[in-house]
Amino acid sequence: MPSQDAIRAAADRIAPHIRRTPVIRLSPAETGLENPLTLKLELLQVTGSFKPRGAFNRLLSADVPKAGVIAASGGNHGLAVAHAASVLGIKAEIFVPEITPEAKRARITDAGAQLVVGGANYNEARLASEARAAETGALMVHAYDQDEVLAGQGTVGMELEADAPDLTHIVVAAGGGGLYGGIASWYRGRAQMVIAEPEECPTLFMAGLVGQPVDVPSGGVAADSLGAKRVGDLAFNVMQEVGGRSVVLQDQVIRNAQRWLWDRVRLIAEPGGATALAAVLGEAWTPPKGARIGVVVCGANCDPATVVG
Amino acid sequence: MPSQDAIRAAADRIAPHIRRTPVIRLSPAETGLENPLTLKLELLQVTGSFKPRGAFNRLLSADVPKAGVIAASGGNHGLAVAHAASVLGIKAEIFVPEITPEAKRARITDAGAQLVVGGANYNEARLASEARAAETGALMVHAYDQDEVLAGQGTVGMELEADAPDLTHIVVAAGGGGLYGGIASWYRGRAQMVIAEPEECPTLFMAGLVGQPVDVPSGGVAADSLGAKRVGDLAFNVMQEVGGRSVVLQDQVIRNAQRWLWDRVRLIAEPGGATALAAVLGEAWTPPKGARIGVVVCGANCDPATVVG
Repeated sequence: MPSQDAIRAAADRIAPHIRRTPVIRLSPAETGLENPLTLKLELLQVTGSFKPRGAFNRLLSADVPKAGVIAASGGNHGLAVAHAASVLGIKAEIFVPEITPEAKRARITDAGAQLVVGGANYNEARLASEARAAETGALMVHAYDQDEVLAGQGTVGMELEADAPDLTHIVVAAGGGGLYGGIASWYRGRAQMVIAEPEECPTLFMAGLVGQPVDVPSGGVAADSLGAKRVGDLAFNVMQEVGGRSVVLQDQVIRNAQRWLWDRVRLIAEPGGATALAAVLGEAWTPPKGARIGVVVCGANCDPATVVG
Repeated sequence: MPSQDAIRAAADRIAPHIRRTPVIRLSPAETGLENPLTLKLELLQVTGSFKPRGAFNRLLSADVPKAGVIAASGGNHGLAVAHAASVLGIKAEIFVPEITPEAKRARITDAGAQLVVGGANYNEARLASEARAAETGALMVHAYDQDEVLAGQGTVGMELEADAPDLTHIVVAAGGGGLYGGIASWYRGRAQMVIAEPEECPTLFMAGLVGQPVDVPSGGVAADSLGAKRVGDLAFNVMQEVGGRSVVLQDQVIRNAQRWLWDRVRLIAEPGGATALAAVLGEAWTPPKGARIGVVVCGANCDPATVVG
């Protein structure tokens, strides 16, 4: 797991390229919940998700070959890599599965990357991208299972602790586990981690049950951002080391959290971006009395009509 | 004009009921603009606009009669008064004109207020509400032209200066001028005020030309939030005292700013909420070299499909 120093170094490296996203605090008086919430508004990050943190850190830490970079992604990571490559003047090729929504595809090509649509899900796109990388020699930027990527995502935790040092619990969505792994590596037990996962792609939950990363189905409303087939080894190791309570959520609870964010805070989050909040609003987890809860709202790459319409 | 002490007192009074809205900084490298921007995300305020600041301050400063409170509004002020009254256990009657969008009407009735739709524009609704107040004895909460309302809106400036003390220019949209008047009363020349107004309802611009508040047309895309028929006396007096450069914007430039906010920052703002940013993105105003610009993004009560669709 990345050290705090590695995360600090990542923060310095990526600072010129990413936004310091703000937090907003919601009191029990206004939400009707037992506990105060602090939302980390990472959906306002460049490209509309947290992913550029890891992507920039990886690209700025590596010797990029002439063939450029390559990535597979449900969309957000691909967009982040496309954006980072464009900013740094590097060629990028992005593989996405067929489920990737048009809103994400268009942004990837707008960023100047070569888009390849292939495979029914993230895993198939990933395999295709690996075959292609072997062919071209391009640098692979993994969506979650690389040290530099985890360290980059860890800067979310570093900022959150600086802005809200009183938090006792950090709730974060997981698919491949890069964001969870990065943030948990930053906190190292100073706050308890709560891992929010859709029932239809519960990678960390199942890995915890089985005792190692295993393949799971990857469906449901959040599959285009949380639909990894299995959790990354790095994130699994972080969970073994610092722990984390897994909360599994039904699609409808995630949809309700999206609607709540618009009705109450005027934020549009994609399903994966609202999944952490769903763990707080739903009945799957009861926070202990006195908990001060940080919720990472981590992505907004959807058509707002799917939230409000 | 309200003193800084009056604004500090308002901040203390309303603190339990409003959100400390955050700022986000956008660098020239990412926007392609000459100057760094600091967005004050007041669209994330309770009820989706800055208006509860003034409404709570007015209600908490007054002896509210048994007949409750009454207000006229294009929507945001009415929703704020309805919300504040509901929180404080007070009866509220809200008059809106026919142009008020359904999204705003529904939220007003959802907050438990009596909604009266009457008049083609804000001014006609205001006259109707005044006649009704004379009948019932309800306390009038003016949308902009009352000291307590101005002091409440001034807390936006107080927070913005605390979070971004280096700003040289503050850009704010104006209709009746309550938000401008409050923020300018806080800054008192420590930063230069830039007043953004739609070409189709340029209340402060015309008042500045004529030398006193005068009636103007109140049309265009932002009429449901900036469509006052004339600027308030209080805001006009503030402008006489501390100044402010008026920038007049075409509807299309406002629409473009809405789209920019979604494409670049994943924020949905209503037309009036994006008008200040329009002054920065459009060609109507060229900021001086070295300006550090604060932009108040002040409302989000619209259907997102009107922005993204």
